[in-house]
Amino acid sequence: MAEETVAVGLMGLGTVGGGVVRLLAANQEKIRQKLGVAVEISKILVRDPSKPRQVEVARGLLAVDPADILEDDRIAVVVELMGGLHPAREYISRALARGKSVVTANKDVLAVYGPELYALAGEHRVDLLFEASVGGGIPVIHPIREGLAGNRLYEVMGVVNGTTNFILTRMSAGGQDFHAALAEAQALGYAEADPRADVGGDDAARKIAILASIAFDTIVTYDDVYVEGITGVTPADIAYGNELGYTLKLLAIARQVEGEVEARVHPAFLPQGHPLAAVNDVFNAIFVRGDAVGQTMFYGPGAGQMPTASAVVGDIVEAVANIRHGSCSRISYPGADRRPIRPMGDVRCKYYLRLTVQDQPGVLARIAGVFGDHGVSLASVIQKKTVDGLAELVLVTHEVKEEDFRRALSVIAGLPVVRRIENAIRVEEEWQ
Amino acid sequence: MAEETVAVGLMGLGTVGGGVVRLLAANQEKIRQKLGVAVEISKILVRDPSKPRQVEVARGLLAVDPADILEDDRIAVVVELMGGLHPAREYISRALARGKSVVTANKDVLAVYGPELYALAGEHRVDLLFEASVGGGIPVIHPIREGLAGNRLYEVMGVVNGTTNFILTRMSAGGQDFHAALAEAQALGYAEADPRADVGGDDAARKIAILASIAFDTIVTYDDVYVEGITGVTPADIAYGNELGYTLKLLAIARQVEGEVEARVHPAFLPQGHPLAAVNDVFNAIFVRGDAVGQTMFYGPGAGQMPTASAVVGDIVEAVANIRHGSCSRISYPGADRRPIRPMGDVRCKYYLRLTVQDQPGVLARIAGVFGDHGVSLASVIQKKTVDGLAELVLVTHEVKEEDFRRALSVIAGLPVVRRIENAIRVEEEWQ
Repeated sequence: MAEETVAVGLMGLGTVGGGVVRLLAANQEKIRQKLGVAVEISKILVRDPSKPRQVEVARGLLAVDPADILEDDRIAVVVELMGGLHPAREYISRALARGKSVVTANKDVLAVYGPELYALAGEHRVDLLFEASVGGGIPVIHPIREGLAGNRLYEVMGVVNGTTNFILTRMSAGGQDFHAALAEAQALGYAEADPRADVGGDDAARKIAILASIAFDTIVTYDDVYVEGITGVTPADIAYGNELGYTLKLLAIARQVEGEVEARVHPAFLPQGHPLAAVNDVFNAIFVRGDAVGQTMFYGPGAGQMPTASAVVGDIVEAVANIRHGSCSRISYPGADRRPIRPMGDVRCKYYLRLTVQDQPGVLARIAGVFGDHGVSLASVIQKKTVDGLAELVLVTHEVKEEDFRRALSVIAGLPVVRRIENAIRVEEEWQ
Repeated sequence: MAEETVAVGLMGLGTVGGGVVRLLAANQEKIRQKLGVAVEISKILVRDPSKPRQVEVARGLLAVDPADILEDDRIAVVVELMGGLHPAREYISRALARGKSVVTANKDVLAVYGPELYALAGEHRVDLLFEASVGGGIPVIHPIREGLAGNRLYEVMGVVNGTTNFILTRMSAGGQDFHAALAEAQALGYAEADPRADVGGDDAARKIAILASIAFDTIVTYDDVYVEGITGVTPADIAYGNELGYTLKLLAIARQVEGEVEARVHPAFLPQGHPLAAVNDVFNAIFVRGDAVGQTMFYGPGAGQMPTASAVVGDIVEAVANIRHGSCSRISYPGADRRPIRPMGDVRCKYYLRLTVQDQPGVLARIAGVFGDHGVSLASVIQKKTVDGLAELVLVTHEVKEEDFRRALSVIAGLPVVRRIENAIRVEEEWQ
């Protein structure tokens, strides 16, 4: 009797695709034992079959027509690794509608079209699995959707972009400026030639949209996320923060607050004892808080060929297990129940502020007065004398409503004694 | 039409049991939405129904006869929270044999009788879920069994006992000795009146037996684990380690090495940059390495009523989802394939050694000579002058086979210039 086999169609054979092929081959026997069936890649969609590949695959497996996968009823699981919005959205939709389970690593498509794709998967009772879309090899999507299901989760906060974390780690450790650290990241292959999606915060914004959706069981898309990148961060700010007991990270934050959802990505100071403060280099970590579990954190490699392939293969194993047991779509997808997104002006947090001011008596009192008028109180102050009658002033506020802080800041910027607003960086202090 | 309901039987209504009752009630609606069915506790086994409880339950739910749960065919899921070996083993076996899925937080019973219980669950094609048995509320069992299934995992290393981690954190931060730190832990409710299972390492040994079994897909039981507790640790050792760049933790370690499995629990120095070194107080974390994912870590509260209840309820949700979809036992249990356990004498690691010696020329040369005769080379040395012609000598070796180190040590102990072997602590250095 021929052994039972589940056929998988791969769409895309780039870095991650090659890793998936290699990993499935290397762990074939282990996976077969675990599942009781063999998993076999029966077709791989590529643009150019004649292109040389890092990984060896039989020429007969390669296809250029997506229909060879999408319309082949022997293929039960489609693994989408092309990236980008289109045609990924269309291919995933077609696969789901045809009753195939889909595994994807594509954060872009989920952050924008997640709601329609989740609905389609639910409707056709197939799996749409996306562990690799956030945090590379770190198991975090499944733990949030399943293991923590007994909780009401109210906060997800993460270091979810390895490129920016590497840059900030270098800036913190070596005192390099942003451009030097970026150049080093590029030389090491940790940053792309066009690094905008990473350093501008968009990549992290896509990931937090996905995490917020599954953690809070609502719909949060990329457009809902407030985004600031790290290009304005300087070694001086990092050094002052350090003096105040803080580490700087690019944080992706989602919270449920009074029936609304906050979703934002920006540089932020964390207390040095915070578990996320110790996440360095290209590592990622996602910190999750729930009413029962308290705080928990998932740490690991946020990108890379084999870590990402690890997550994809984990999802393939789950999809096949579910197909074999007729139990696809066991856990429901984020609901159509769309809770309101809190406007950024209403978000509350602490602020670090660095100013260049005239070095004369009464300046601090003046600035504190303006803050006081706007309901902003100060937690700490560092003043350093600099040259030419100018001083550098570093303030940390107590918790403040974003729009109140912004209003106060615009008044302060207009004070004759204030030469320059050097930087304003949020502080995320509360965690224990 | 009456709504579909899945009935759950609870065995034990102590701290965790009360938390489970509370959490299921609080998240009833959320869980119903997620599953499409309601989950209802229909019976609770207790010793004394008249005992006052922290949590309110209808008197009619309480039962003193286990048969009221085990032989009630309406009950589909049995949640065992009694702890201990007996009668937990017998009740779990009876439930599984009767086709019920079982959720348990009982590390003791799994570390000893895991193999027979896994086999029984597999045979009857029901679920035996035990997320709460290790790491309290941290999702770690499922990620290892499922999310990382595409990997060949070769190392699991964890801080898995909150009591000892609290004690070591206090000893490190405050310079307290072991007994003072233990008394503080007891006063705070972090250590039991009889703390032996925690401080002696047995609790951690049970957990690493479970983790090793599922990570390596083999059978490792409590008896296979080498155990040393933390009672011999002193503030002096912690301070010297600190000087050398190390943090002291009680580590539970399992590795696959050359076809054998290492499983051990003992105090160990970690480099201060290791992700586990930052795990403080009663927190736990489990660090996992695999061929594809590289390194990943799961962090959170290792104990406590609600965190543990969170893990139990997550398992109940999964068990019910599987029952509803007829997909219990989707992922296979650790195999009967029992790889050999590496004898402790064959294990290789670095050693920190603290000695009191006579403060005279040639002592270090003499000691280094004995080590050299046994193939042990030294990586670093600290010598401090103390009183009365005696000096304190701290050495760190390069990697060495345990039995070679032990032999060298017994020769060194007999040297006339050596007054006392103060302490020998393993060093786990490699991680990046």
